[in-house]
Amino acid sequence: MNIIDIIVKKKNKEALTEEEIKYVINSFVSGEIKDYQMSSLLMAITINGMTDEETIFLTKYMLDSGSKLDLSMFSNVVDKHSTGGVGDKTTLIISPIVASLGCKVAKMSGRGLGITGGTIDKLESIPGFNVNLTKEEFINELKSVGMAITSQTDTIAIADKKIYALRDVTGTTESIPLIASSIMSKKIASGSKNLVLDIKVGEGALIKNIEDARHLANLMIKIGKSNNMKVICILSNMNIPLGNNIGNSVEVLEAINILYYGINNNLTSLCIELASHMVSLGLNISYEEARTKVINAITSKEAYNKLLEFISYQKGDINRLPKSSKIYEIKSDREGYLTNLSSLELAKLSGLLGASRQSKEETIDYSAGIIINKNINDKINIGDTILTLYTNKESIPNININKLFTIGGTPNNHYTLIYEIIKD
Amino acid sequence: MNIIDIIVKKKNKEALTEEEIKYVINSFVSGEIKDYQMSSLLMAITINGMTDEETIFLTKYMLDSGSKLDLSMFSNVVDKHSTGGVGDKTTLIISPIVASLGCKVAKMSGRGLGITGGTIDKLESIPGFNVNLTKEEFINELKSVGMAITSQTDTIAIADKKIYALRDVTGTTESIPLIASSIMSKKIASGSKNLVLDIKVGEGALIKNIEDARHLANLMIKIGKSNNMKVICILSNMNIPLGNNIGNSVEVLEAINILYYGINNNLTSLCIELASHMVSLGLNISYEEARTKVINAITSKEAYNKLLEFISYQKGDINRLPKSSKIYEIKSDREGYLTNLSSLELAKLSGLLGASRQSKEETIDYSAGIIINKNINDKINIGDTILTLYTNKESIPNININKLFTIGGTPNNHYTLIYEIIKD
Repeated sequence: MNIIDIIVKKKNKEALTEEEIKYVINSFVSGEIKDYQMSSLLMAITINGMTDEETIFLTKYMLDSGSKLDLSMFSNVVDKHSTGGVGDKTTLIISPIVASLGCKVAKMSGRGLGITGGTIDKLESIPGFNVNLTKEEFINELKSVGMAITSQTDTIAIADKKIYALRDVTGTTESIPLIASSIMSKKIASGSKNLVLDIKVGEGALIKNIEDARHLANLMIKIGKSNNMKVICILSNMNIPLGNNIGNSVEVLEAINILYYGINNNLTSLCIELASHMVSLGLNISYEEARTKVINAITSKEAYNKLLEFISYQKGDINRLPKSSKIYEIKSDREGYLTNLSSLELAKLSGLLGASRQSKEETIDYSAGIIINKNINDKINIGDTILTLYTNKESIPNININKLFTIGGTPNNHYTLIYEIIKD
Repeated sequence: MNIIDIIVKKKNKEALTEEEIKYVINSFVSGEIKDYQMSSLLMAITINGMTDEETIFLTKYMLDSGSKLDLSMFSNVVDKHSTGGVGDKTTLIISPIVASLGCKVAKMSGRGLGITGGTIDKLESIPGFNVNLTKEEFINELKSVGMAITSQTDTIAIADKKIYALRDVTGTTESIPLIASSIMSKKIASGSKNLVLDIKVGEGALIKNIEDARHLANLMIKIGKSNNMKVICILSNMNIPLGNNIGNSVEVLEAINILYYGINNNLTSLCIELASHMVSLGLNISYEEARTKVINAITSKEAYNKLLEFISYQKGDINRLPKSSKIYEIKSDREGYLTNLSSLELAKLSGLLGASRQSKEETIDYSAGIIINKNINDKINIGDTILTLYTNKESIPNININKLFTIGGTPNNHYTLIYEIIKD
């Protein structure tokens, strides 16, 4: 078998066989297939696509390239994954809710890259927090706390790690079969048999339109099925940031506040939706029953207490969250209604303030970020503070306010948070 | 400017700007853009194409990446290029014809790779032959012999050298804008203002169909025009090998025999056609007048003498051509007419016998190759030798005779050597 013939086949829009896909994955991991050959194939896949069958084989051999976690000692493990959004701290809110209701939430999370934040970076902003659990520590925490979050180990889906790093620098991130196989190979390897997928749609997400999101959802449900995993997909709006805080320590703070005060905004609504589907899967009860339990877990503060228990178990000290040395306020120069917030532009700005890596080598300023002081459709007066920026940089970047948010004459009635729920 | 944005733009079928193309070429040569990024972009170009304007800019910056040869001291320089075929030793036959008629033939040639042979490898099969001329030696030979062939110097179209090497191992060879810019950047840098292009079409060629060949021809004429170069394109059949010999020293031998004996076959016909267009351009005379001169140059043996003068000037010893230690004959097991010879399968077989590199690191067995003992439509009897194989390998590869040639009940009347001639 020859990699050039395989590349040319995909260039000509032909489907690859199981044997060819197996050869590609194994030879890329072994180093026989070079990065420059793999990136050429990845671009051909990005443009010409893959059949569902090809994607299932791709997932299988990416999964087989690494180790697998066995969680069969637990009966009600549930996992959740988001395709990545701006201000998306749902994992920090949902996991304690679901764990407090008796499910086991076992999560291996990633770091942020580009405009998308990562749960591991957010947790690392808590002084002392240990994101590198051994397998034994992970299992023990699941037994005693009911939830555990650790950094993806180097031995899980090794092929995905190599492919993901290459996609990020070769313009091949926006491919449905590549996204599906990347997520599913890691999730299947992580040991859960129940998965709720939050597929983000919009300018601040990898997936820009609803048709692609539906395609991705159905594909991941199909991959799950062929691996004995139940998958429910939520298609949610990622044009407007989730919640009010963007960054790392500011997002941890928002998660704590949501669970303590039960604040009612788009972030809370999405968390209740996602958590209800997780509990329904994990406890094998109806969605309605699960939803009642979820709301109770918030109002009773059981979820809040679970979050603190989890942070403390992984040695984080919530009282020492880092604070930035400089604070800037961005005020409105007109009156009206806050009709739009650009998740893409706000994420870029947050990155420039220090909250995300511009390249893999950069370190993150955990205290940097943005707090959005108003909600969508709030009435705005001249001089109202819309955004507060936190940074340790000497100067803030040039900002075109008009790109960050929109003040309109009438409220925006077109905002939908959850587009669709897709399950088998 | 950012290479990932440029890759994504081309992935989305958008045209790149002159500035973006300049950035890509210069940053790839400097090493800022990595091989794995370039190969991703090359695949996006291969699948999504380029506008003529983009291709002209691409050629310009590839040309500008290296040095240029100034041949303005000569008034009638003509160059010829073939897109690469099987058994294609036309350069060795045409150049002495055209030089013997007073034109200057200044050729920088390449080595073979994959199934396509290279003129430099063929010349190197002549013991002593010097393929690495200095600029002064090259100019002096043009003055005294009227023709000179040297290996492409490392300083000509540096970007092309790097891109070509990458395309060869990433499945991105079959792209019209990439083929056009590669050929034209080198040809313009080589200093001639007149160029005859032999565009091969068929299974043994990079270009598989006549529409693509027409597109390539018109594109190269357009690029030539914007660089003050006259270009004539011949679209010729590459389903059947050119002439009877495939390899290196056996091809040199065939070129000598054609010029000495004036053998009448598809190879000679194509050489006369190509040479006539070259002489017409170089001497600025009509095609008919040029054709009469070309035929005279062969029958008078002036071209033959010029070939010997050229070989001897570059220190080659024609009496010591290498011979292989093993000879195998492939005979027909049926009677009929030789209706087809597969240039692709014969080229692969010739390579396996040792005549071409399977990878860049391999050395060539200059004596290895194939002689086709019959011509298309010859009457064949059982036991007639169709092919003679030359090799130094201990065993010959498994051969499926039916893939190499076809014996039919009636002659093949569908063979056309020259499809079209395209000029401005």
